[in-house]
Order: sequence, then C-alpha cells, then structure tokens
Amino acid sequence: MNLTGHSLIAGQTVDGKGKTANGFNPATGQPLEPAYSLLTNAQLQAATSAAKEAFPSFSNLDPETHATFLEAIAENIDAIGGELITRAVQETGLPAARLQGERARTTGQLRLFAGVVRQGDFRGVRIDPAQPGRTPLPRADIRQRQIPLGPVAVFGASNFPLAFSTAGGDTASALAAGCPVVFKAHNAHPGTSELVGHAVTQAVADAGLHPGVFSLVYGPGADIGQALVADPAIKAVGFTGSRNAGTALMRTAAARPEPIPVYAEMSSVNPVFVFEGALRGDVDALAQQYVTSVTGSSGQLCTSPGLLFAPAGEAGDKLAAAVGRAVSASAGQTMLTEGIAASWNTGTEALGSAAGVELIGQGTPGPTENAPAPAIFGTGVEQFTTNDVLHQEIFGAASLVIRYAGIEDLLQAASRIEGQLTATLQLTETDYPEAARLLPVLEQKVGRILVNGWPTGVEVGHAMVHGGPFPATSDSRTTSVGTLAINRFLRPVAYQDLPQELLPEPLQDANPWHLNRRIDGTVVPAAEAPSA
Amino acid sequence: MNLTGHSLIAGQTVDGKGKTANGFNPATGQPLEPAYSLLTNAQLQAATSAAKEAFPSFSNLDPETHATFLEAIAENIDAIGGELITRAVQETGLPAARLQGERARTTGQLRLFAGVVRQGDFRGVRIDPAQPGRTPLPRADIRQRQIPLGPVAVFGASNFPLAFSTAGGDTASALAAGCPVVFKAHNAHPGTSELVGHAVTQAVADAGLHPGVFSLVYGPGADIGQALVADPAIKAVGFTGSRNAGTALMRTAAARPEPIPVYAEMSSVNPVFVFEGALRGDVDALAQQYVTSVTGSSGQLCTSPGLLFAPAGEAGDKLAAAVGRAVSASAGQTMLTEGIAASWNTGTEALGSAAGVELIGQGTPGPTENAPAPAIFGTGVEQFTTNDVLHQEIFGAASLVIRYAGIEDLLQAASRIEGQLTATLQLTETDYPEAARLLPVLEQKVGRILVNGWPTGVEVGHAMVHGGPFPATSDSRTTSVGTLAINRFLRPVAYQDLPQELLPEPLQDANPWHLNRRIDGTVVPAAEAPSA
Repeated sequence: MNLTGHSLIAGQTVDGKGKTANGFNPATGQPLEPAYSLLTNAQLQAATSAAKEAFPSFSNLDPETHATFLEAIAENIDAIGGELITRAVQETGLPAARLQGERARTTGQLRLFAGVVRQGDFRGVRIDPAQPGRTPLPRADIRQRQIPLGPVAVFGASNFPLAFSTAGGDTASALAAGCPVVFKAHNAHPGTSELVGHAVTQAVADAGLHPGVFSLVYGPGADIGQALVADPAIKAVGFTGSRNAGTALMRTAAARPEPIPVYAEMSSVNPVFVFEGALRGDVDALAQQYVTSVTGSSGQLCTSPGLLFAPAGEAGDKLAAAVGRAVSASAGQTMLTEGIAASWNTGTEALGSAAGVELIGQGTPGPTENAPAPAIFGTGVEQFTTNDVLHQEIFGAASLVIRYAGIEDLLQAASRIEGQLTATLQLTETDYPEAARLLPVLEQKVGRILVNGWPTGVEVGHAMVHGGPFPATSDSRTTSVGTLAINRFLRPVAYQDLPQELLPEPLQDANPWHLNRRIDGTVVPAAEAPSA
Repeated sequence: MNLTGHSLIAGQTVDGKGKTANGFNPATGQPLEPAYSLLTNAQLQAATSAAKEAFPSFSNLDPETHATFLEAIAENIDAIGGELITRAVQETGLPAARLQGERARTTGQLRLFAGVVRQGDFRGVRIDPAQPGRTPLPRADIRQRQIPLGPVAVFGASNFPLAFSTAGGDTASALAAGCPVVFKAHNAHPGTSELVGHAVTQAVADAGLHPGVFSLVYGPGADIGQALVADPAIKAVGFTGSRNAGTALMRTAAARPEPIPVYAEMSSVNPVFVFEGALRGDVDALAQQYVTSVTGSSGQLCTSPGLLFAPAGEAGDKLAAAVGRAVSASAGQTMLTEGIAASWNTGTEALGSAAGVELIGQGTPGPTENAPAPAIFGTGVEQFTTNDVLHQEIFGAASLVIRYAGIEDLLQAASRIEGQLTATLQLTETDYPEAARLLPVLEQKVGRILVNGWPTGVEVGHAMVHGGPFPATSDSRTTSVGTLAINRFLRPVAYQDLPQELLPEPLQDANPWHLNRRIDGTVVPAAEAPSA
C-alpha cells in the first residue's frame, strides 16, 4: 500500500494544514518517508463532529453486525501482511518476532471483544418487575442497561505500535462498547498507524457504518492532544504514555465545562519481592529470568520490573552476583526513539549517582544507534525509603536491586511505594507466612499480583487487570487490558414503566438479544435462542 | 438519648476545638439545643487516621459478619423510635410522615445491601484457569476480584436528613463495599445526625469491628469539607448538594497528589415532556399530579420536575390553565433552612422577570416561617433555547411550563438541556412514534427515563439509576441509589499463579464464600453450600 502521509477522517484522506513530521528509523537515525501532514486544531473538529454524528447509530448496533465489524478489523490487519511488520520494525526498532506477537495480540483482542459483544453481559441488564399490589405504594417496572458514553479519544502509545495504538486495546474496548473513536497517532510510528488506520476504515465502510465511527489523526503531539480532550464531542479518553503527558490530559479533562473520564496508564516500577526460600533454588536461573524481564523489548514495557527486593546476607549476595553476571552478558537493543534513549541515559545517570547506589552490572551497547547497555544497580532498603529518586520509573532496560533485612523492611518499603501496575513475589512454601503479611499491603498499591512469574507479558483475557492506583493509572477502577476494559466506556440508564414498544431491545420482555439478565437481584440466564 | 453536641470519632465523643453551631427550627427560626462543637482541621485527622487503620480488617470481613453489621445499624436506627422523627421534624421542617417514610427507606437500604454482601456478585470474581499446554506460550492462572477503594468521605445532604445522611445511601454502599466512612454531618440537622451516628457506632462496637470503621464529624462546612477531601487517607467521596459545593470538591480531589473519585450528585431540573395524546385524557388529573410532584417536600427533591414541555394550541392551553388552578390551590410548606428559602426567592424572582416568562399560578405561603408560596411559570420553547436562566435549577416548589409546537421543537430543546437525573414522558400509544425519536436524545442526557409517572419518589432496588451526565452528577458511570451503587467504591485486582494458601477466600478453588464466578468468560453459578 502507498502511504499517503495524511490523516484519515471519517473515511476521507485529509491533508493537514499544519507542519509535517517524519517517522525516524531509530536504528539508523534516518527519517522515513513519507512526511506526515499535521492537522490544525480547526481541522481536528471534522473528526470529532463526525464521531458525534456516528454515535446514535453506532451505539445501537445489533450485536451480530457489531461483532462482525470488530472481526473484520482483525481480518483486515492480518491481510496487510508482511508490509505492516516491515514498517513497524523500521519505525520502532523492535524485533520482527516481537511485532508479529504484538500483531497477534492486537487481532486477538479484537476477536475477544467480538465475543464479548455477542455474549452481551456487558450490557448489564437488570429488571425489577412492577409490583402493582405492593403497600404502602405500588412498585413501578424498572429496567437498567449500560449504554456507551459517547465518542472516545484514544492516544497511541510509543511502545506498542500495534497492541496499544490504532486498533489496539483502547480502540477495541471503546468500539466494542459502542463508542466511535478518534485516534491520535503517535508521531514515532506514523506509517504503522496509517496502515492499520486503513484497515479500520475499510471495515467501517464494509459494514455500512457511519464513517465517523473511526478517524485517525496526525498532529503536533501535546497541542492536538489537548484540543482533542477539550473538544465537547469527546466523552472519554484512553491514553498510554508518560506521567507528565497523562496528568496534563487529566487536568484538561477535569477543567472542561463538562468534565470527562480519562483512562491514562502512566508510570510503574513493578517491584519484585524475592523471599529467602526462593534463594534455595536455582539462583542463576532466577537472576537470568529477572534480567530477561528487565531487558526484553529494551525494557520499554509498562510492566518491566524496575525494583527487585532481595534478602541481605549470603544467599542474597549470590543472587546479586548472578544478576551482575547475567546483565553483563546482555546487549543493548535499539530503543523506540532518540528521545527515549536520551531519557534512559539521564535516568540511569541520576540513579547511579544517588547516595548509596552502586552499579551491579551492565551489558554492552547494541550495534545500532540508540541501543544503550542494560544496567542494574544495587542499594539498601534505607536508601530506598529515604530517597524519592530511587522510586522513579526509568523507561528502558534498567533496574534496581534493593537488599532488605527481613519482613519488617519489606512491609515498610511496600508501604512507601506509589501505585503500581504489578507486584511480584518470588517464594517457596516456607515463605507463605511472610508473604501473607505482605499481600494486603500490596493489594492497596497495585492492580496485579504475581507469584513466581515475571510481570512482563500481559495475558489478554477475562480476568486480567492492567491498571492500579495513581500514578500507575489515572483511575484504579478499571483495566486497559482484558474484557473488563469495556466497562470504562459505559454508564447505566434506568427505564421506568416504558411500554415494550419503546424499550430498547436488550430490555424487552421477549429478550431478542438472548441476554443474561439480573431480575430482582438474581441473574437469570438467557433462554436458549429459538431454533431457526 | 441526651445529645452530646460533639463529634463521634472512632467510637469516642470528641469536643470540637472550633466554634459551635446550633441547628435551627426552620418553622420558627429558633435555635435548637444543644450547640454543636465544631472540629478543627487538625482534629479531623483523628477520624481519617482511624479509618485508615480500620481498613485492612474491615475490607476483609467475612460476608456474614459484614451483612449482620449492616442489619444491626438498621435495627439500631429503628430502636431510636419516635425521638428520631421528632428531632428531624424540628430540624428540617419536613412532615413526620415524610420522615417516617425516609427512615424506612434508610433502614431498607441497609438491609438491601446486607443481602448484596451475602450474595456476593459485587466481588466480581473472574477466573481464567491456567493452560500449561498452550502454544506458543503456556497461560498462567489468573483470577480477579473487586476490592474496596479505602476510607470514604461522605457528606450529609440537607434535604434527606436520614436517607442521604449519616447512615444513608452513600454510607450504606461504602460500608457494604468494605470501606470505612468518615461522615461529615450537614449543619442543618446536627441532632438527627448524632442520633443516627450513635446507632452506627453501637453497631460497630457490637460487631467487634475496629472503631475507625465509622466517624461522625461536625465542622465549618466548606473548610472541613475541603480538608476531608484533601486528606491522603481518604480514597473516595460521596456528596449530595449544590453544584457550587460539588464542583469545589471535584477540584480539590483532582488537585491532590493522588487524585480520587468524587461522586457528587448536584443539579437537575428533570424535564417532563407531555405529548399530544396525553392531553386527550384527564387533563385536570395530569395537572394535579404535576403540581403534587413539584410541591412535595416543598419541592426540595433532587428529582423534582423543574420543566414541563406542553404542546402549543388549545389542548395545551387547557393543561396550562389546569396547572394554574392546581398550583393556586396549593400551600407553601416549611423549607429546610432560611438560606434555602432565600435562594428560592432569588431564583423565582430571576425566572419570573426573564423575558417572555409569565406566572401561570401561585399558591399561598404556609403558616410557618420559610414557607414560600409554590409558583409555576410559563414560557415558549424559543425563550428556553436562548436563555440559560431558564435552565437553572430552583431548589424548591417552582417549575416552568414550556409550550412547544411539535416534535422538532422538543428535539431541539432536549438537545440543549444539560445532564439530568431524570426525564419523563407523558404519552399514549399514538405518541409512540414521536417518543421513539426523542428517547435517543434523552438517553444521552439523563440517568433515568420514565413514562407516565413522575420523577419524584426514587425506588431503591437493583435496577434503579439515580445519576446522570454532568452537572446532574460528577460521574455518570454510577448511581447513588440502588445496589449498583456499591460498584463506586470498588476496584479490580488480578492474582496470577498464587498458591491456594495465599489466595483471598473469594478466589480459592474451594469457593468457601459460595460465589458465582465468571470462568473463562462465562458465569458459573456457585455450587450449593454443602449441608452442615
């Protein structure tokens, strides 16, 4: 496909009247063609207006058309073939195998949400039937369902050019909820975004939907982002990125005449707690797993483990030494952008020069540009609890090993950390009593707790939570990965004494959509669909 | 019971070091004894610290102890007997019968939530079992549940001294979720609040819970409210009151180092749309029902109908005339406070003097202080769509009849209104086609849609939504009435590969709490409890 270098607004290619911007190959530092024309804020309004126009019909789509539409997006992405991976490798420096896996996750998410749309529990049907004979007052017939919030602004993430970009998690859950999406491409991978944008646009057209259901916009990052969040047509925001950018969007959304929800996934250092028992096993293997989790995708994962608490004493010394050997044997991989590599350098310099912090080991730089050598540092729990620098996320392949003297140290340290996406425990059965004391503290801090695994590699399913208290996310009540994410874009509406003819289909007595329904507080499974 | 005139912090009476404040009998303007000592902000911290301390144990209570505790609060409130109604009548001017009904709603809410706690679906258990043989990568065992957010600040509402105050809806749903509550009493009914506060405190003690589960605090309204929302121990806020006060709390919560959710129920004018067909019935009865809904509780209900759209032409003229007769026959009732009555006067003067607005009818003032004469005004749809003054809530017995020429007028007017708690349609079968056009517009504006009823009188059940887009509430994704309200105080946490011994009880294979669980996306009902 020839890339146009333009935004795709409601099915139309739109030449941005602002400046232009190129993607760059971070492995070479060279610009990539074509240059992308950036929209002015005035041009942006065409996308939000179209989304608003598309909302009434899209939000009331029948489940089969709706689900088939999501599946068609997945099919269209698959149909792009190798060109998508090639372009994404050029724009991000990520390995092809990683991007192939990410593509599978992206299409898998869309198909998973298609299943959610067909199954229909997310519609949250509740029926409290009328009780005309109740005393002292009769009870009305009251029925509840969840409806979509309205058009959603989604921001592409630098580190997931597919799974958290154009047709990624936020787009999939918003479209599944029935919300049109205005997608703001990340300027680091504009071509990848355009390829997927055409796939979505084609699916919208093939399904006969209003073209405003999806727009892909390019613009000067912060400017157009603020304009998008401030636009009255936008009713919710999905964002994955830095704490600074995320909190700026939160402020804009809160300051609107009509404030709207922002789902920003921002900053997390994902602590790992190694208990004594875990050191009686294969310490070299444990160290290698840790280093693999730290260095995978050049450490550019939201769930990359930035802290590892290891016991003081001889066994812990062995682990630290093994970590040092493992990281020293690792090589740098190209980072997503020159700017991200520069931030990694600044962050590791600040960490390495903090009082009481030493370098445990460092690998070798990669053979390309922007591929710094992975580094793991060490310190004590006292330094950690007294120096905020040691709590800050360094985006990239860097981590900090913190030596602790006992469970009281761990409890104190855990109570000091900010909100996180994950916390991980490495342990054996003998550690259960101490782990049981730490778990309640961690529950208050994180969205996901793992035992004897590693936090990188987020399963997309029904039970996953990719979220957590601020600053891991702006709203701990939700997740950005997994089917529960659809709830972010819904709100309840009650219907009192509506005649059947005026009730929405999910609430009609005949239950034409075959939904499970909560009747007087108890879920009643849908009757089987009548045989055709 | 002798009222102490002091705050109740974690089971202890605390003498406020600030000024004192008395309740007033709004029917006479006379102060009521005792004077209440107001806390300083420094004293407030004892309540929030105790709530924080209480959280770990209270948030992990077994369902039976938890449910029995909620029921005990209800029993203790019932046990106060007539003294509670007498005091509430003195402090609010509301009729005893209304307050008896409100008490039944309050205790009914607590008992309803006890049932929700025993039933357990709110725990949101999802299990995606491990798939060790999956390729290319095995799947971990991932389990999800909803946990409580943390201590909640609840603000008493002036207009519901029982059902939206000390042990009212917000307190009940927060306690049901497992969140300790710091309750800020409304200074207009301090004695009523204290009586109920002792009932809650006694239930906390009798259940053997940490005393920090509940505190009742008195303080200078805005000051202590801001301090409470800013307190780092507080993790969510429930509020019912004015738009100014609610948005001030929203700003404070958003500006915290760790922003928190605010559930503020604020401003609503609850439009009623009368279609042509409805005028072929008993127009006098329709008018009387409207006036009754406008004037009940002196119009001091969040769902009081502030707007009624009536057709232009002869049939509509008859309705307007009937409304005029009905309201002229009505009498004022004592309003909650002198200040609220003064605001009503200001609001009705502004409305009555707006261009194109005329008085349709006015009743007579009540025999007490602060009992202004109910007033209903009339105007045209053009005035309504061009003058924001006509959109503003007047808290009290006042309403505006807006004459419209046809469905296009209604669609235009409905698209102009702000977010509302409710919208009501008065119609017959012949009006269904036009109503079907209006409904999608209303769904985007309101939390509850009624047909041929009146919005006042909010049923407490499983399907109720008492919420809606801003400014009706600060967060349209929730409800403040009904069992869905428990969701406001919960967030999901996932547990990956935890051994059974470390899993929380709701997630253990043995399912000791007999919960329905979503397994691989499909709800599996709890097995029957084993016979004892």
